[in-house]
Amino acid sequence: MIFASDNWAGAHPAIAENLTAHAAGYVSAYGTSELDRKVERRFSEIFDKEVAVFFVGTGTAANSLALASANRPGGVVFCHREAHVHVDECGAPEFFSHGARLCPVNGERGKMDAARLEADIGRFPSEFVHGGQPMAVTVTQATESGTIYSLDEIKTIAAIARRHDLPFHMDGARFANALVSLGVTPAEMTWKSGVDLLSFGGTKNGCWCAEAVVLFDPAKAREMHFLRKRAAQLFSKSRFIAAQFEAYFAGDLWLDLARHANAMATRLAAGIAASESGSRLAWDAEANEVFAIMKRQVAERLQRQGAIFYDWHVPHHLAGGLAEDEGLYRLVTSYATTSEDVARFAAAC
Amino acid sequence: MIFASDNWAGAHPAIAENLTAHAAGYVSAYGTSELDRKVERRFSEIFDKEVAVFFVGTGTAANSLALASANRPGGVVFCHREAHVHVDECGAPEFFSHGARLCPVNGERGKMDAARLEADIGRFPSEFVHGGQPMAVTVTQATESGTIYSLDEIKTIAAIARRHDLPFHMDGARFANALVSLGVTPAEMTWKSGVDLLSFGGTKNGCWCAEAVVLFDPAKAREMHFLRKRAAQLFSKSRFIAAQFEAYFAGDLWLDLARHANAMATRLAAGIAASESGSRLAWDAEANEVFAIMKRQVAERLQRQGAIFYDWHVPHHLAGGLAEDEGLYRLVTSYATTSEDVARFAAAC
Amino acid sequence: MIFASDNWAGAHPAIAENLTAHAAGYVSAYGTSELDRKVERRFSEIFDKEVAVFFVGTGTAANSLALASANRPGGVVFCHREAHVHVDECGAPEFFSHGARLCPVNGERGKMDAARLEADIGRFPSEFVHGGQPMAVTVTQATESGTIYSLDEIKTIAAIARRHDLPFHMDGARFANALVSLGVTPAEMTWKSGVDLLSFGGTKNGCWCAEAVVLFDPAKAREMHFLRKRAAQLFSKSRFIAAQFEAYFAGDLWLDLARHANAMATRLAAGIAASESGSRLAWDAEANEVFAIMKRQVAERLQRQGAIFYDWHVPHHLAGGLAEDEGLYRLVTSYATTSEDVARFAAAC
Amino acid sequence: MIFASDNWAGAHPAIAENLTAHAAGYVSAYGTSELDRKVERRFSEIFDKEVAVFFVGTGTAANSLALASANRPGGVVFCHREAHVHVDECGAPEFFSHGARLCPVNGERGKMDAARLEADIGRFPSEFVHGGQPMAVTVTQATESGTIYSLDEIKTIAAIARRHDLPFHMDGARFANALVSLGVTPAEMTWKSGVDLLSFGGTKNGCWCAEAVVLFDPAKAREMHFLRKRAAQLFSKSRFIAAQFEAYFAGDLWLDLARHANAMATRLAAGIAASESGSRLAWDAEANEVFAIMKRQVAERLQRQGAIFYDWHVPHHLAGGLAEDEGLYRLVTSYATTSEDVARFAAAC
Repeated sequence: MIFASDNWAGAHPAIAENLTAHAAGYVSAYGTSELDRKVERRFSEIFDKEVAVFFVGTGTAANSLALASANRPGGVVFCHREAHVHVDECGAPEFFSHGARLCPVNGERGKMDAARLEADIGRFPSEFVHGGQPMAVTVTQATESGTIYSLDEIKTIAAIARRHDLPFHMDGARFANALVSLGVTPAEMTWKSGVDLLSFGGTKNGCWCAEAVVLFDPAKAREMHFLRKRAAQLFSKSRFIAAQFEAYFAGDLWLDLARHANAMATRLAAGIAASESGSRLAWDAEANEVFAIMKRQVAERLQRQGAIFYDWHVPHHLAGGLAEDEGLYRLVTSYATTSEDVARFAAAC
Repeated sequence: MIFASDNWAGAHPAIAENLTAHAAGYVSAYGTSELDRKVERRFSEIFDKEVAVFFVGTGTAANSLALASANRPGGVVFCHREAHVHVDECGAPEFFSHGARLCPVNGERGKMDAARLEADIGRFPSEFVHGGQPMAVTVTQATESGTIYSLDEIKTIAAIARRHDLPFHMDGARFANALVSLGVTPAEMTWKSGVDLLSFGGTKNGCWCAEAVVLFDPAKAREMHFLRKRAAQLFSKSRFIAAQFEAYFAGDLWLDLARHANAMATRLAAGIAASESGSRLAWDAEANEVFAIMKRQVAERLQRQGAIFYDWHVPHHLAGGLAEDEGLYRLVTSYATTSEDVARFAAAC
Repeated sequence: MIFASDNWAGAHPAIAENLTAHAAGYVSAYGTSELDRKVERRFSEIFDKEVAVFFVGTGTAANSLALASANRPGGVVFCHREAHVHVDECGAPEFFSHGARLCPVNGERGKMDAARLEADIGRFPSEFVHGGQPMAVTVTQATESGTIYSLDEIKTIAAIARRHDLPFHMDGARFANALVSLGVTPAEMTWKSGVDLLSFGGTKNGCWCAEAVVLFDPAKAREMHFLRKRAAQLFSKSRFIAAQFEAYFAGDLWLDLARHANAMATRLAAGIAASESGSRLAWDAEANEVFAIMKRQVAERLQRQGAIFYDWHVPHHLAGGLAEDEGLYRLVTSYATTSEDVARFAAAC
Repeated sequence: MIFASDNWAGAHPAIAENLTAHAAGYVSAYGTSELDRKVERRFSEIFDKEVAVFFVGTGTAANSLALASANRPGGVVFCHREAHVHVDECGAPEFFSHGARLCPVNGERGKMDAARLEADIGRFPSEFVHGGQPMAVTVTQATESGTIYSLDEIKTIAAIARRHDLPFHMDGARFANALVSLGVTPAEMTWKSGVDLLSFGGTKNGCWCAEAVVLFDPAKAREMHFLRKRAAQLFSKSRFIAAQFEAYFAGDLWLDLARHANAMATRLAAGIAASESGSRLAWDAEANEVFAIMKRQVAERLQRQGAIFYDWHVPHHLAGGLAEDEGLYRLVTSYATTSEDVARFAAAC
C-alpha cells in the first residue's frame, strides 16, 4: 500500500525494455541522434504544432529553465502558494533566473485564483523600479492538490498573463494525468489555451528520468540550447531520454498509464468516502492524488499495516473543517498501483 | 569505425539489464532508497575511506557542483587551458559558482605545468582585491589529450594547492581509464595524493548516465545536498543512477571496460605508428584517446570509408611539427570498440 | 511641507563643507587612505568594540552585501513582510545572494512577531532539502512603519536566530533615529543584543551618500572585501564617503540630526492627533515617520496646499479601522524639516 | 610627485562647490529630480543624439551593467587581455552577467588587434553549444596602456562586432583624455563610429564619484532601470552625482581638465625621453599615462625622493627590450598634477 508518491515507482517494463533495445551501437551524442530527432518530431505531432523540445533530467530543471528563459532583472514569477517551484525546488528557479522572486498567489485547492493573480501583478506597477518587475506566470497541471484547471480557467489566466505581456508557463509534472482527466488534447490544454512554455513530465508516469521543456514558439529556442547546456542538463547519451519517451508515446502508453493511475485514485477516493471510521475526502480527487481527512489513530493504524503516505499541511480554506484528532493526508497513485492495494486500503481506512 | 567519442556508445548490457532488474517495485525517492545507500557504501569501499557521494546526471554537473562547493566571491579556478571545464561546458562552472573565473594554465599534452600553476596563482596576491582571489585547482584525469598525470605529478599539484589553501578537484570523466593505465588504486590516485573533490564518471565507460561528486571529507557534505538540489540534479528516481553504478562496480566490470578501451587505443596507436602513408602519433596514447597527425587527404579518405573522428585544435607545443597538408585528429575508443574496427582503421590509415 | 521621504533632503552644511575641505591633495585610493582608517577607527569607538567597516554607496548595497556574506545554497532569509529588503530593493538581496529567497514574516506595525519567526523557520527542517535552508534573520531598526524594536525585542529575535545558527542582521537605514529614540548606546542596540551584521545608514540623516556594512566579528571581514569589490561598491575616491562620516560623527552631529528629525515627527504627530477634521494617528510615531489616517479630501487639500507625502498600503491589522473615505498616509521628517512646515501642516490637517 | 593614479586626486573646486550649492532644499529622490533631468539632457547635447543615461557610483558598476545588459547564457565577452574589466574588477562583470566569461584578446600597447578579435570570435561557432556564445565586444578608450584607438580602429572593431551581431561597448573611464587627444567630438568617438554602449567616467578627471552608463539606443533603456536598481546602484540622493556632472560639463571644464592632464603627461614624457640616466619611454604617451623604462635603482631613488608610481607588468611585446636591471613603470597625471612636480621628476629621472 505505497501511496507516498508516484515517484516511488520505477519504470514501466516497456520503457525499461526500450532502453535495453537502444543500448547497443553508436549514435551521435548531445541530442543530435536520429532517435532524438524522431522523438522531437513525435512531440510536434502530439501537440499538433511544430514545437521546440529540450530533454532534461528533472522536473525541477524543466521548470527552472523554462522560467529562466523569461528572465528579467528584478523579475517576479507568479505561482500558486503551494506550487512545486515555490515549496519543493530549493530555490532552483531563483538560482537559474539569477535571483528572480517567486510571488505566491493564493487560491483554493491548489489553483491560483485569477482575481488574486490580477491583484498581485498589479502590486508591481511598471514605473516603480524598487519593487521589481513581473516576469512570468506559472501554473501546475495537475496541481499539487490533485485538482485540475479547466480549459476555461487556463484561458482566463493566460489572458491575464498576455495582458501584462508575461510568458505563461505550465508545470506538467503530471501532465498526462490532467490530460486524461479533462479528456482534451495536448494542444487544447496548452498552446490553444494560451500556454507558452511547458514542463512535460514523464518520470512520475512510468519513466525513469524523462522530462522536457516544450516551447510552443520554436523561434525562441536558440537561447534555450545555451541555457540547458550551461545548466548541465544536456546529456551526452541523450538517447537514453529519447528512448524512454519513444516507448512512453508508443501506442499511447502514456495515456493508458495515466488513466490507470487516475482510476486507482478514483477508486481509492470512493473507498475513503465510504469509510465508516470517519475518514473522508478533503476535496474531490481529479487526477491521481487523493487528499483525505482521517483520524490520526486511523492513519497510524494504516501505517502500521504497511501503508505509506504523507501527512499534509492543512491549507487555510480547510482549517476549520478538521477535528482536533484529525489530520490531512495525501495519497498518490501511479501507473504501478494495484487494485488489490487500493482495496486493502479502502477496507481498512 | 566510430572513434568520434566514447559517449557515442550506449550502455553495456550488464548495466542495461540491471536497470530492468530494478524497474519494478517501490522504493523511497530522492536518493534515500536502500540501493542508493548500498552503492554509496560501495564507493567508500572502492576508495578505502568513508566518502560522501552525490549522484548527478552529467559530468558538467559534477564538475560545476564540485567547484561551486569551493565558491568564493571574485573566485578564480586554475585549470589547464584545454580542460573540459574551460572549453566544453558553456560556462556552467562559472554559472554554478556565481561568476567565478577560470584561469587557464598552460602545459604540454593537456597536463598543467606545475611551475606555471604556481606562477599563475601568484598573480593573485591576497591583498590585491581588484584581481579576485584563488578558489580552487582542478585537473582532468585522464586529460583531454589522452595523457595521464602520474601520482607524483598529482602530488606536486596538490602540494601547490594546499600551500595556497585551495581545494584540489579532479575531473574524472575518464577516471577508470586513467586508473587502469597507472595500475594504482582509486585511493592512491585521489585522496592519498591530495585530491579533495572528485567528479567520478561512469557515462563514458559504459553507463547511460551515471556521474557522481565524491567528497573525501564527508564533513563537507551538508552544503552539497543543497547545492545539488538547487542545481536540479537530485533525481526523484535516483535508483536509476544507483542501479547503473551497482552493475558498473560488480565484478570490477568498470575496470574491465576501461582496460578494453585502453587496449583498443594502444592497438590503434600501434597501427597508426606503423602507417606507411605518413600518419603518425602526435604523442603517446596513455588512456583511450589517440591523437594522430595525418595527411588531410588520408583523413578524408578514411572518413569516406566510414570512419568517424574529429579534427583537433593544434596545441602550441606541436605547431611546428605538422606539414601544410597535415592535420591533427582525435580518435577515441570505448568499452564498445571492436578489434575489427581498430584493425580496419589501422590497415587504411 | 515636504514629508515625502528623508532622502528628499540634501546634505547637512557640515557634511558638505567637510567634502570641500578634503577635496584637494592626494591620498591613496580604494579605501586605504589615512582618512578612511581614521573613520573606521571612529566606528570602533562608537560601537565600543573593534568592528570591521565597509563603506558602500547605498543602503540596498549594505543590506545585500551583509546578507550575501551569509549566503548558503537554497538559502532563506527571514524578514518582516514590509521590510525594505523585501519590497523596495528590486531583488538586489536575492541577486547578491545568488538566488536566496526572502521569507516574509508577519507582525504588527512593521515589527516581526517572534512567535511567527520561530514558526516560519520551523517550516524549513534541516533534513528536508527540497524546501531550502534558513540562512539569516534581518530586522529593520527603525522599521518601515516608524516603530522601534525595544532591546528586549531585539534580544528575543537574536536568541531565535542564534538557536538556529543563523546570522542576525539589522538594517539600520534609520539607525540614528532609533538610537536616540531608545536612548541607548550603539553597542546596546547591536552586538550587546545579539546583532551580528549591521547596515549603518548616514544618507537619510544628512549625508549625501554614506552607508556602511559593519561586521561585529572582524574575523569575518576577509570575504567582505571581495564581496564589496565584486559588487562594484568599492569607491576609488573612497575618502568622499569617509569625509561625510567624519563630519557626521563630529561633535555627535548625527545624534543631533536624528533628535531633530524625531522631534519634528513627534510634533507633527501631536498636531495630527489634535486635528479637528478627523485626522488621527494610525499608531504612535516612535522615530521620524508618522502614519496618519486622514480623509482623502483632507489629504488632497493638503497636497494642493503644497504638502508632499505618500499614500501608504493599509496593513492587515489596521484594515477595519478606516472609513470608506479615509486613507493611510506616511509623513517622514528629516534633519532638514522645519518647525514652520510642521506647524503649517498641523494647522491644516 | 604623485603619479600613482588619477584617482589619488580629490575633486576639482568647481565640482566641490556645486555639491555645496545643491546641498540645501528638497528634491525628489532616486534620479527623478529636475537636476537629474537637466544633466541627462546635457548628455544628449554633448553626444549630439538622444541618449539614455544612468548614473552609477563606480566605473566597475558602469562596465558591469553595460555588459550585463547584453547578457546571454554561456555568454563570452571579448576584451583586451589587459582591460580593466579583465584584470581589475574582481569578477564584477562576470557576477553581474551571471557567469559570462571574458575572453582576453591580444594586441600591442593595450589595444585589441582586430584580426585576433575576429579569430577569437571565430572560436565560438554558433552551432557549438559547448563553448558558449559570443555576447559583446568591449574596448577601453583611453586604454590601460595610455594609448588611444583612432576612429578608424574603433570603426574596424565595431564592424566586426556588428557582423557577429554583438553589442559594442566602450569603457570610457578616461573618455575625456582620449577625446581631447584625438581632437574629435563625443559623437564621433562613440555612436558615429559604431559604439552601442558607453561607460562614461568623470571620477578620474576631477569628480568625487560620477560615472554613467550611456545607451545610444534609448529604446533599450527599460531593462537598465531594473538592472541598475537590482545592482544597488540607484542612489536615493542621485542629485549628488548630477551636481558633479553639471559642474563637470559647465564651460567645458571636463575638456580643460583632461587637456591639462594630457599636457602634464606629454611634458613628463618629454622629460623622461631626455633623461641622461637611461630612462626612456616604453611607448608614446597619448593620453595621461606615461610608461617608462627605468633602471630599478633610478626608480627607487625617485621613490625615496617622494615620487609615487607603480611597477608595471611587462607585456610580451616589450619583453626583450628591458635590461636585467630595468623595470617598467607607470606614471599617471591628472587634473591636479602640477608643472612643478613634473619638472622635479623630469630633472631627477
